[in-house]
Amino acid sequence: MSSSLRIIPLGGLGEIGMNCMVLEYEDEILIVDCGLLFSDLSHFGVEFVIPDFTYLRERKDKVKAIIATHGHEDHIGAIPFLLKAGISPPIHASNFTTLMLRERLKEYGLEDRVTLRPFKPGESFSFKHFKVKTVSVNHSIVDAAALIIDTPVGKIIHTGDFKIDPTPFFGQTIDLQAFGKAGDDGVLLLMSDSTNVERHEHTISESVIYQKFEQLFAAAQGLTVVSMFASNVARMAQVLEIAEKAGKRVALAGRSMEQNVRLGAEVGYIKNAANVLIRLEDIDAYPRDKVIVLSTGSQGEYRSALIRIANGEHGQIKLQEGDLVLMSSKFIPGNEKAIGRMINSLFKQGAEVLYEAVHDIHTSGHATRPELQQMIELTRPKFFLPIHGEYRHMVHHAKLARETKVAAENVLVATNGAVLELTKDSFRLVEQMEEPRVLVEGREGNEMSRLVLKDRRQIGEKGIVFSLMVRNIETRRIISGPEIITRGLAHEDREGFLIEEAKKICMKKLAAYENDLRRTGEPQMDIQEEIRIELRRFFFANTGKKPVVLPMILDL
Amino acid sequence: MSSSLRIIPLGGLGEIGMNCMVLEYEDEILIVDCGLLFSDLSHFGVEFVIPDFTYLRERKDKVKAIIATHGHEDHIGAIPFLLKAGISPPIHASNFTTLMLRERLKEYGLEDRVTLRPFKPGESFSFKHFKVKTVSVNHSIVDAAALIIDTPVGKIIHTGDFKIDPTPFFGQTIDLQAFGKAGDDGVLLLMSDSTNVERHEHTISESVIYQKFEQLFAAAQGLTVVSMFASNVARMAQVLEIAEKAGKRVALAGRSMEQNVRLGAEVGYIKNAANVLIRLEDIDAYPRDKVIVLSTGSQGEYRSALIRIANGEHGQIKLQEGDLVLMSSKFIPGNEKAIGRMINSLFKQGAEVLYEAVHDIHTSGHATRPELQQMIELTRPKFFLPIHGEYRHMVHHAKLARETKVAAENVLVATNGAVLELTKDSFRLVEQMEEPRVLVEGREGNEMSRLVLKDRRQIGEKGIVFSLMVRNIETRRIISGPEIITRGLAHEDREGFLIEEAKKICMKKLAAYENDLRRTGEPQMDIQEEIRIELRRFFFANTGKKPVVLPMILDL
Repeated sequence: MSSSLRIIPLGGLGEIGMNCMVLEYEDEILIVDCGLLFSDLSHFGVEFVIPDFTYLRERKDKVKAIIATHGHEDHIGAIPFLLKAGISPPIHASNFTTLMLRERLKEYGLEDRVTLRPFKPGESFSFKHFKVKTVSVNHSIVDAAALIIDTPVGKIIHTGDFKIDPTPFFGQTIDLQAFGKAGDDGVLLLMSDSTNVERHEHTISESVIYQKFEQLFAAAQGLTVVSMFASNVARMAQVLEIAEKAGKRVALAGRSMEQNVRLGAEVGYIKNAANVLIRLEDIDAYPRDKVIVLSTGSQGEYRSALIRIANGEHGQIKLQEGDLVLMSSKFIPGNEKAIGRMINSLFKQGAEVLYEAVHDIHTSGHATRPELQQMIELTRPKFFLPIHGEYRHMVHHAKLARETKVAAENVLVATNGAVLELTKDSFRLVEQMEEPRVLVEGREGNEMSRLVLKDRRQIGEKGIVFSLMVRNIETRRIISGPEIITRGLAHEDREGFLIEEAKKICMKKLAAYENDLRRTGEPQMDIQEEIRIELRRFFFANTGKKPVVLPMILDL
Repeated sequence: MSSSLRIIPLGGLGEIGMNCMVLEYEDEILIVDCGLLFSDLSHFGVEFVIPDFTYLRERKDKVKAIIATHGHEDHIGAIPFLLKAGISPPIHASNFTTLMLRERLKEYGLEDRVTLRPFKPGESFSFKHFKVKTVSVNHSIVDAAALIIDTPVGKIIHTGDFKIDPTPFFGQTIDLQAFGKAGDDGVLLLMSDSTNVERHEHTISESVIYQKFEQLFAAAQGLTVVSMFASNVARMAQVLEIAEKAGKRVALAGRSMEQNVRLGAEVGYIKNAANVLIRLEDIDAYPRDKVIVLSTGSQGEYRSALIRIANGEHGQIKLQEGDLVLMSSKFIPGNEKAIGRMINSLFKQGAEVLYEAVHDIHTSGHATRPELQQMIELTRPKFFLPIHGEYRHMVHHAKLARETKVAAENVLVATNGAVLELTKDSFRLVEQMEEPRVLVEGREGNEMSRLVLKDRRQIGEKGIVFSLMVRNIETRRIISGPEIITRGLAHEDREGFLIEEAKKICMKKLAAYENDLRRTGEPQMDIQEEIRIELRRFFFANTGKKPVVLPMILDL
């Protein structure tokens, strides 16, 4: 009996981010990507969410490789946590991806814990059951790769994130021929990026953005600030090239911008850094219209360079009338409010600001509907699995596949934790694991439990009240207290009054308790619990909220 | 010497929401709108933000009227708080606006505290210094009005929120002639809605939406759920009319939907309710494709009807394959994530979902650039003040006014708290008050202070640690404790260990303290503060976060 190939998405299916796909055949597991998801729960201290590695931990010895399709955080950011979980096979990644990963590993002091195996997109490598061919694709980061994998059941394709741009800034375009050849040879399963399926127009080419930048830089009357994702080395290189042609200088604002320009130079994508880069502290030595600042903070991130510029708190950069800010990046859903506030602040500084809604100075890294259709037509897969997208994107992508001649019953929509089995003539869900996600707090990556989250939510929304009493352990009488401390409960003008009233209520309960005690020699009530209930009731009546109440009795 | 007119925006300039404009001439103040802003700080218990009424409280006797331009929450929602602040002049509002307001006042038990003076758009009313002509405009709520006000310094126009729709569902269109006539008579100042200035295409007419609904309802294979703002009575009326023509029935999901259909019928906008409405619990008695559900929850609000439907938790409505959900409303910035999750869940229930990104089943209530330009051209104002928008919208609107022949120096961009003075030949900022906003918690409208917000943020992100000791007041010796309680601090697997370690640290400090005490008879340290510092340090080292630490000593 021939075995089936198990395909298990631990992340990336049903939400955008945290991409992680497990491929398992008999005694061998490959992991394609291992990324993180930036949390919208950050109010409660959750920095990000990573896949749950339980499935992998239980099969640790089978894991033979991690393959990273490209260097974005949502594809490599959880690798340090995978290593910490004791799973540390060799990591295959393209040159630039390897550099990004090396930096990430250094931050965690893990750079010596793993073997990095860099590849050039186009190269192949083999395992016992798998032969992996890497294929160059266009994306919003250089050195992105898709994977065409020969498995014992047939050929499968994982597109990673991709788009089709015939005229990118660097020569490296998507290798459509490789996909076409795979289609000719016969593709059993295509797993393809769903992020942009709702858009109907082909993505704008990077060469169009290049022209826009050229025009805008030439017309600049004052300082030009360009914000973008620091990982978009190709766009940085564009800016540097145009700047040099226009006789301008470029300064970098933000640590990750500096880091990635350095990495871009290291792999040879950025060639003219020495000619155009100046230090941020030297910008005033140049005519204002001859300086371009490349800045981090396109998402309005707390303490990022651009937000400090917007708030007038940046040490070196003070905007003024005539300056121009170009926001050359997408607004990530959930960040709109923060970005909106930042743009307003930039305008208040007197600058002109161009952004998505008013100007085309950014293009997406993800294939839109016609490009996705082209991918399906090139590869003509028997089975289709939409990946990398919210559930609605995957539903739309599945429909597209059916419209593009994949048999309706051969298209699956699956979510994280699905255990899928693929044979040469079947593809089905055999099990659905509970959602494999772990909330992570702090860079150390401490796991946050649902309980801690619930507690923080409660006290963060309603405040907390401590009440404290001292009891004689023999007589059971309360000999001191109640003392009451609150935090985040009510306006300071009312807090004192509320605490005094709350004490009176406790005293009343206490009197009843003491009365019982005198009468019967035995307490008739759980005074701690009674006080908790009374206090919650009191505060609810007086503030409209039920704070967390923690009564405490010290026995002496 | 003639007086000037003071124009003081207490809200609505620099962010979308909380609209409130003060007009003051000598001994007379009119308030145009008094709305609230839904808060994106809701994690910390802040429900909404309202204008600060200090300026008005100090001039209580001068306030002669509130004029509400229409019935949206961001125009009338803060009126109950204004009344509670002791400012309760007569309120002028159109018929439907009056009904909305009456409901709002009832909720707060304030319906008897104020005189309501309903008007039909087009009517005028006078005060000592002001003559107010109300003008019908198109908006996403019926009975919306702009105001053309004759003042001692000249004619001023406040557009309220508006758009230009020549073919709305109801006959009531914008009275462009009234604006044109004002322009002929001479307009000193135009204050105009900036919300949609970034859009370049004319808003789609409601009649187009009508046709889309007709097609979609006719093609329905299963249940159709339509979500929209419950205040959009015109769109509800459309749905009811199309339903009747198509021989379908309509059920209402959500309390505010029921309330507003009732109000819509009361003012005569909804005429066929008796023919088409059925009770939600009766929908199974009809063929599934003959039922349309009008639902609240278009913003993914917690516990709203649509979110319960999406999560499969609604008592009467269970979606299935073939059902259709139409989201006929805009996604309010900040709500995208919640709405996105809800749409994903609706798809998971098997329904098809149409929404902004994939289908035109909604049109905005706010004038876009060409309409805004038309307003300026019609009224030809001497001075221009962009209102109702984020700062960037107002900057763009100001530019548009300059491009539309308003003299550059006569265009002001002002923010909330600006005190502007208008005379027949000058318009200038004379003072900038601190941002006049109040954070409000709970329906009771308790003011939340910055301190409480800060505390909640801290404990909500990092957790809290409470340490407790009992001290003999005479000997100064610690006779019990330390006890330690934490909430929201660390994963429950680690919490016990952390508390034990923390206690050891406290004991060590305590030993030093006791040592000092024995040696000198006087404590050499503030043991409470020392323990606070030690504990914060300890938890930071062990969890990466500095929780709030509250040490407490009870003297016995």
